[in-house]
Amino acid sequence: MRTSIATVCISGTLEEKMHACAEAGFDGIEIFEQDLLVSPMSPEEVRALAARLGLSIDLFQPFRDFDGVTVELFAENLRRAEAKFQLMNRLGVDMILVCSNVATATIDDDDVLAAQLRQLGDLAARYGVKVAYEALAWGKFVNTYRHAQRIVDLANHPNIGTCLDSFHILSRGDDPSGIEDIAAEKIFFVQLADAPVLSMDILSWSRHYRVFPGQGGFDIAAFLVHLTRAGYTGPISLEIFNDVFRQSNVRRTAVDAMRSLQWLENRASHRIEKSLEAPDAEPLPEPHLELEQLPIVEPPHGIDFVEIKTEDSEAISELLSQLGFVFQGQHRRKSVQLWTQSEARVVINGQRARGTAPNISALAFRVDNPDMGYSRALELHAAAVPRHHTPDEAELRAVRAPDGTEVFFAHSDSAQSDDNEGASVPAWTQEFGTASGASSYSTALIAGVDHVNLAQPWQAFDEAVLFYESVLRLDTVPGTEVPSPAGLIRSQVVRTHDGAVRLALNLVPHGLDAEEADLDGTPRNYPEHVAFSTANIIEVARRATAAGMDFLKVPENYYEDLAARFRLTSEELAELKDLNLLYDEDADGAFVHFYTETIGKVFFEVVERRGKYDGYGAPNAPVRLAAQFERSRFRGQR
Amino acid sequence: MRTSIATVCISGTLEEKMHACAEAGFDGIEIFEQDLLVSPMSPEEVRALAARLGLSIDLFQPFRDFDGVTVELFAENLRRAEAKFQLMNRLGVDMILVCSNVATATIDDDDVLAAQLRQLGDLAARYGVKVAYEALAWGKFVNTYRHAQRIVDLANHPNIGTCLDSFHILSRGDDPSGIEDIAAEKIFFVQLADAPVLSMDILSWSRHYRVFPGQGGFDIAAFLVHLTRAGYTGPISLEIFNDVFRQSNVRRTAVDAMRSLQWLENRASHRIEKSLEAPDAEPLPEPHLELEQLPIVEPPHGIDFVEIKTEDSEAISELLSQLGFVFQGQHRRKSVQLWTQSEARVVINGQRARGTAPNISALAFRVDNPDMGYSRALELHAAAVPRHHTPDEAELRAVRAPDGTEVFFAHSDSAQSDDNEGASVPAWTQEFGTASGASSYSTALIAGVDHVNLAQPWQAFDEAVLFYESVLRLDTVPGTEVPSPAGLIRSQVVRTHDGAVRLALNLVPHGLDAEEADLDGTPRNYPEHVAFSTANIIEVARRATAAGMDFLKVPENYYEDLAARFRLTSEELAELKDLNLLYDEDADGAFVHFYTETIGKVFFEVVERRGKYDGYGAPNAPVRLAAQFERSRFRGQR
Repeated sequence: MRTSIATVCISGTLEEKMHACAEAGFDGIEIFEQDLLVSPMSPEEVRALAARLGLSIDLFQPFRDFDGVTVELFAENLRRAEAKFQLMNRLGVDMILVCSNVATATIDDDDVLAAQLRQLGDLAARYGVKVAYEALAWGKFVNTYRHAQRIVDLANHPNIGTCLDSFHILSRGDDPSGIEDIAAEKIFFVQLADAPVLSMDILSWSRHYRVFPGQGGFDIAAFLVHLTRAGYTGPISLEIFNDVFRQSNVRRTAVDAMRSLQWLENRASHRIEKSLEAPDAEPLPEPHLELEQLPIVEPPHGIDFVEIKTEDSEAISELLSQLGFVFQGQHRRKSVQLWTQSEARVVINGQRARGTAPNISALAFRVDNPDMGYSRALELHAAAVPRHHTPDEAELRAVRAPDGTEVFFAHSDSAQSDDNEGASVPAWTQEFGTASGASSYSTALIAGVDHVNLAQPWQAFDEAVLFYESVLRLDTVPGTEVPSPAGLIRSQVVRTHDGAVRLALNLVPHGLDAEEADLDGTPRNYPEHVAFSTANIIEVARRATAAGMDFLKVPENYYEDLAARFRLTSEELAELKDLNLLYDEDADGAFVHFYTETIGKVFFEVVERRGKYDGYGAPNAPVRLAAQFERSRFRGQR
Repeated sequence: MRTSIATVCISGTLEEKMHACAEAGFDGIEIFEQDLLVSPMSPEEVRALAARLGLSIDLFQPFRDFDGVTVELFAENLRRAEAKFQLMNRLGVDMILVCSNVATATIDDDDVLAAQLRQLGDLAARYGVKVAYEALAWGKFVNTYRHAQRIVDLANHPNIGTCLDSFHILSRGDDPSGIEDIAAEKIFFVQLADAPVLSMDILSWSRHYRVFPGQGGFDIAAFLVHLTRAGYTGPISLEIFNDVFRQSNVRRTAVDAMRSLQWLENRASHRIEKSLEAPDAEPLPEPHLELEQLPIVEPPHGIDFVEIKTEDSEAISELLSQLGFVFQGQHRRKSVQLWTQSEARVVINGQRARGTAPNISALAFRVDNPDMGYSRALELHAAAVPRHHTPDEAELRAVRAPDGTEVFFAHSDSAQSDDNEGASVPAWTQEFGTASGASSYSTALIAGVDHVNLAQPWQAFDEAVLFYESVLRLDTVPGTEVPSPAGLIRSQVVRTHDGAVRLALNLVPHGLDAEEADLDGTPRNYPEHVAFSTANIIEVARRATAAGMDFLKVPENYYEDLAARFRLTSEELAELKDLNLLYDEDADGAFVHFYTETIGKVFFEVVERRGKYDGYGAPNAPVRLAAQFERSRFRGQR
């Protein structure tokens, strides 16, 4: 599949955009006219730069308000078009996008529109240019791809074809399967965009909220399948107008875009493969889009370890100890500690941590084939984390997630070593010695990691969702918004179907209060956390209380509201209150949990899921956020 | 008019919110339940704090999903309600907001709903509580205020009345005049919210985009007139859910909210006054809302001076000189220079400017009565700028605009002094001596200040629009969005009807590129500018070119596009290109302008308006932004 991207998707100067697209591995670009117009590079210089970077210029766009106009305006439009054709010759691009008229059309007559396009085709032919006509969803007379196609068919000119844009088709709820009826040679160009499912006017939706395929709610893979079945073989291009992408780092956004196309290609390819297995399957036409598949991997089976980086490990160690974790040992070579309890493993990394407050620096996922997972991640343009290991140490490979967290691929088959209780433990833990510490408790109550909550800076949020989906094969579930004293926090869970791995990605609000936001727009003290699972939250809380642990204090008012909302006995309520426990229930079951105080940028949660409760206690999140805000832990120097 | 505000409008802890509301001068507050629930303060402590701050607690809200439910659920809902009534007794609040059912209603029968509300009324009466029933715009069965009123009338219980919320009524396009038909004693509460006119689902619109009255597109003043005519005399409260307010400084937002109510009260009062003057006017009922008026002032007649603050005045002086400004002199006492050309006056302030790069620090407006303008601004909670002056110096008073710019009130009657050419000049200019410098040009070509473009941080944008509207009586015109290489820039012009004063307020995008945004979310180097007016742009540009001025370079591609878009002769085009001039035209006329390079955070523009052109060359703004981006002037250490 030949990949392309419109320069309007990303930020910066035209020169920076072209470099970023080339580096991300795109085959070509669409030049958005405005980007050229404001550039100091001449068309010839742009052409030369594209050639040097190995980028084809696939499309020049947009040309607006051409069709359905009066004779007088039509002459003017042809003059305008000719100036652009001349410019295109200098740029070395032979395809122009003509959008259906929004502003100046007065003649609602397909024959007139077709005749005007035919004349444009004649003019275009003289310059060796092809015209891809696209129905804008808000076009005055032409706003569906079928209507645009009818006019293209009527025009019946070799230089006039159609441009299909997934946004303009899917945002209207149109059925894209009609694409398969269009003659392949008449599909001159294809632009893809995804979008969250919003109910707003299509123009605003389109101008601000488009996202890369896989980041929104449209079925773009199905769209690609239809194109393949239509026999289209041209470039697949991204055209995304997004307020965040426009402001973000141009190179990162280009890589994000490329990953989205790869992931899309992979999914579409699998769908076609499946559909061809059906007994009455129609074969694909020849030629058709060749879609590449990524190596097939299964989603991870669990979290192998969580790494917390900090200069000073004391406070974290104390918390872990109060929660019943055992100090497993110091790494034999590095300034790294291992704390464990059942399947929960926390690595405290003191390397290169001068001045670093505790923060979640890495997550390791248990996968079937770490090597394949890693190389597949690199194929998906994830950045490798350089790591050194001695020959007798386990080779753990990692890539960097969009927010900087290191993502390790660990062996899910952990039976390479047995601890002294006979349970299987990962081989790498041997580098820490075995159970050199002891628990203050006779039995381990914490079973493993339930979920990890990671703060995402505003530029990384959509990118992170796609990253975890494509690189780790996690699934997204519908997002939520949680009120905090410093703004709404958007939260998106990515998880495995079986719940063995659950990550909550939280979009941190821009500002805390005005003074601080002026100094530092990103509230980097917004804490992240690891939630451990237990089958006996009461006992864990009792032990921790006895050990003098700092719980996050839950306000009295909360328990009064609990009493109004749920049918809890006064004994149950008293126990919850006594132990600073929070409670939620739904039709599937109940959820009891507590939070520790925050150390640096990290705190811990312990959760007990009762019945089939599958959520995260979202109604209690505001209580936590307010308590943390009150304790000034995420407001910096307040 | 008694003013109130819901605690959900602003950021911070409940305690901080209450302090901020009291300081801003609100009479009372609505307690949003969630704010109490997450607070460590007990209800009794909240009550005591409110009393100490002189705030009444006017409403407890919201109580959801009460009405239209099954018998079983109804019993549960009464239990829930009783718990809240007990809580309200402890808080000392006697009014609760009950929203029409969204989630759990199954019975669409007004009689059943009324009977359930009546039973709630009986229970409420036992606790001395009154229930204000409100139709949510997205309520399942009840979603208009007329329907809610019908049910309240059917319930016919002294403790059951209605709550009117301007958002829920106006967002649906309902006619608010029916309010006048409601018995005044049945209007238990009123909540106001404005909103920009958006086409999106009402729930999202309501949860994220509400703004204070005067900041959106609703006619809230008319709403208030209807309430007055209905005989309502209770508190007028603000209930605003806004993503930005939730993140901004609590004290500033509270003041912004208060100003919005004052301005609203003033406008509604004027409307009533006018309506009562009509020959067939209906008198107001007794009693009715008493609406206060602000002193009446006229909009300003022009910009008296622009102040640029900088440690080093050399580069700015050179630019001004190249544009034909005359150095008028040094202030006799302060490190301040005055440069003038006709009615354009630029003050360069070097006081307390150590390390300060040039920036627009103050604007002076010519008004009829500076004293009244100033004291009226203070009434509108504008912050006074402390200023020292000696007895023989002009007393110029100033307040601070939301973005920090100082706003001076200067005498519009400037005939207190004559310069040597016989033109009238402001008295304060005499403190600078008279024409101690000389122009390099024989005639002054620049006539005055056409407009000033001010960058607004994200927290200040809506606040600034309301500030200029209420304090200076400027009018808003529809806003625009301008693409820049670092994101879309939202722009809002506020101006006098005659165009004598025009300010463009630009909302600066959050980030430039990701790395820098991580370090510094606010691109504080985003430049502002002063645009001077001339009747001969060609000559100004020629002179400046001859004087070696640094023009902002316009790319060649721009002129090729101009040729395609407009019917300009090749001579005209050549002249534009030669002089780095930009061009725009519309049905009213044409606009020719140029920009200088940026010094610190300031640059200048010179504009010639031809015919009745009334815009600002918006199509050319992206060219300017790209050129400035390219020159690294607003990207800091790029």
